[in-house]
Amino acid sequence: MSVKTPTVKLSTTNDEMPLVGMGMWKVPNEICANTVYEAIKAGVRMFDSSSDYGNEKDSGEGLRRALDEGLVKREELFIVSKLWNTYKQPEQVEIQIRRQLQDWQTEYFDLYLIHFPIALKYVDPAVSYPPGWFTAEGKIELDRAPLHKTWAAMEKLVSLKLAKNIGISNFGGQLIADLMTYVEIPPAVCQIERHCYNSQQDLIDLCEAYGIRVMAFSTFGPASWLEIGVPSATQVESLFTHPVITKIAQAHHATPGQVLLRWNTQRNIIVIPKTVKPERMVENLKSSTCNLTEEDMEAINGLDKGFRMGNTKVFDPRLAIYA
Amino acid sequence: MSVKTPTVKLSTTNDEMPLVGMGMWKVPNEICANTVYEAIKAGVRMFDSSSDYGNEKDSGEGLRRALDEGLVKREELFIVSKLWNTYKQPEQVEIQIRRQLQDWQTEYFDLYLIHFPIALKYVDPAVSYPPGWFTAEGKIELDRAPLHKTWAAMEKLVSLKLAKNIGISNFGGQLIADLMTYVEIPPAVCQIERHCYNSQQDLIDLCEAYGIRVMAFSTFGPASWLEIGVPSATQVESLFTHPVITKIAQAHHATPGQVLLRWNTQRNIIVIPKTVKPERMVENLKSSTCNLTEEDMEAINGLDKGFRMGNTKVFDPRLAIYA
Repeated sequence: MSVKTPTVKLSTTNDEMPLVGMGMWKVPNEICANTVYEAIKAGVRMFDSSSDYGNEKDSGEGLRRALDEGLVKREELFIVSKLWNTYKQPEQVEIQIRRQLQDWQTEYFDLYLIHFPIALKYVDPAVSYPPGWFTAEGKIELDRAPLHKTWAAMEKLVSLKLAKNIGISNFGGQLIADLMTYVEIPPAVCQIERHCYNSQQDLIDLCEAYGIRVMAFSTFGPASWLEIGVPSATQVESLFTHPVITKIAQAHHATPGQVLLRWNTQRNIIVIPKTVKPERMVENLKSSTCNLTEEDMEAINGLDKGFRMGNTKVFDPRLAIYA
Repeated sequence: MSVKTPTVKLSTTNDEMPLVGMGMWKVPNEICANTVYEAIKAGVRMFDSSSDYGNEKDSGEGLRRALDEGLVKREELFIVSKLWNTYKQPEQVEIQIRRQLQDWQTEYFDLYLIHFPIALKYVDPAVSYPPGWFTAEGKIELDRAPLHKTWAAMEKLVSLKLAKNIGISNFGGQLIADLMTYVEIPPAVCQIERHCYNSQQDLIDLCEAYGIRVMAFSTFGPASWLEIGVPSATQVESLFTHPVITKIAQAHHATPGQVLLRWNTQRNIIVIPKTVKPERMVENLKSSTCNLTEEDMEAINGLDKGFRMGNTKVFDPRLAIYA
């Protein structure tokens, strides 16, 4: 009954990563365990998590139940998580992944990403977990943790078998180019905000030229930002009702959501739509059975307007990481 | 007879840097020595150079003549130069600045910048100098020279008294944020493409929050790219005839060029207009005597459209440093 989703090969390990997974950002704690369990039942094999989402313990419960019931084996799943900004000091990296693995009740992540190219001051998890962006006094406190030292600690996670693959998130061209000058293990994946209004083709070209797979978040555009009240999300038309998208969807007997996903996966860009509804999970997984024409792809490319929704500069001018 | 130009203080050294200088990019070799000499005569006290401009030897001749004739003393001048992409290996940095200092016939640069956040394979100056972007085979060959190692070598130039201040050019938010986690001497200046069509306010805010002065190149917008045939430069209206600019210029009895410069210097952003005409040099220097109103500044801010003209991605997808 489950739907097979296509995969892409990752550099270094040659591991196969599913092109369609599920994003855990904003999945409410009270239904999170069940959502993970139902997702596995529906055929989801890849999950995108982070300590910052505050639901890794719940996710771990859902995973445990699915494994205990024999729905899948651990090795059939691909679990992604991320290192938060407050744990960038090299000595914190291993401690932190072990904490997250314990929450997930698993022995390794298939892929572990640096969540942001930002280092914030360490916060003791006994005091606050996940600690988010601001100190107790409501301030942004930067930490002097150089990326080259954090990355060396990330590489160590691979030899410790705590992460099979390592990667980055919210990184841009300059920092990736510099990172590539000193990596022993290059990042396998770079996760970025990518949707029809912010297609980021130059960044994708750069990643692919370096052999880095691209993973898109916010594939549905403004939809996922409306619910957290980001004002810019109201300034653009919903992609679900955009005439370019709905016309293509009709032509392929697909839903607009499936078209938005397929525009990515057809060019080997990994997607992680979030939903808590099993029927929507199946719909997302089935998106890969639709094949868009070159004209469809071009028409969707034409919607790009460099419109980014997530931007940490609103917290502090020093966090204008996309400038 | 010379015009006094206002200055800004640089971090770490408290050196005063003139807000208006002269850009040496594209000054032809055959008139370069004389242009530098005439510029000093006209009151120019700051020059922005780079080995890549291929005219440092000529500039040095003009400088020598002006010094020999007693027009100025060396300490009254502020000479900026830049480290090219092929000399990013730490052991090359000192060798290269000494070569450039010899060309300039001077003992130190007031400011020495990393020209691009890009490391290219070393090219022996005996074979090709300046080597530009491409190998003899017409290829882009990257070099694994991490910025943190290059920067440590840049810092050494300060203790060797070869550079009084050090800085960066064409850097963006992420890489600056990472650089700031490990510098012993922070960059004093970041030089960026900035004009009314590409105001880069977020990047300026980030630099200023870190105490880094911003230096604008291409202040006149498309003008300086038309002559080297960059197609995008023809896609936008000239800033010299733009009604918003000409109207403000008339109101202040200034030239459009002066308004374009003053929009920067009035907020302490350093400018380096290029001209080979002494009367234009004086005009540029005098731009600081005009004071724009808040309404003028806002009207000019309104011209921004994130329109960048210089982009190394055209050479190679891995050079999409602004993505």
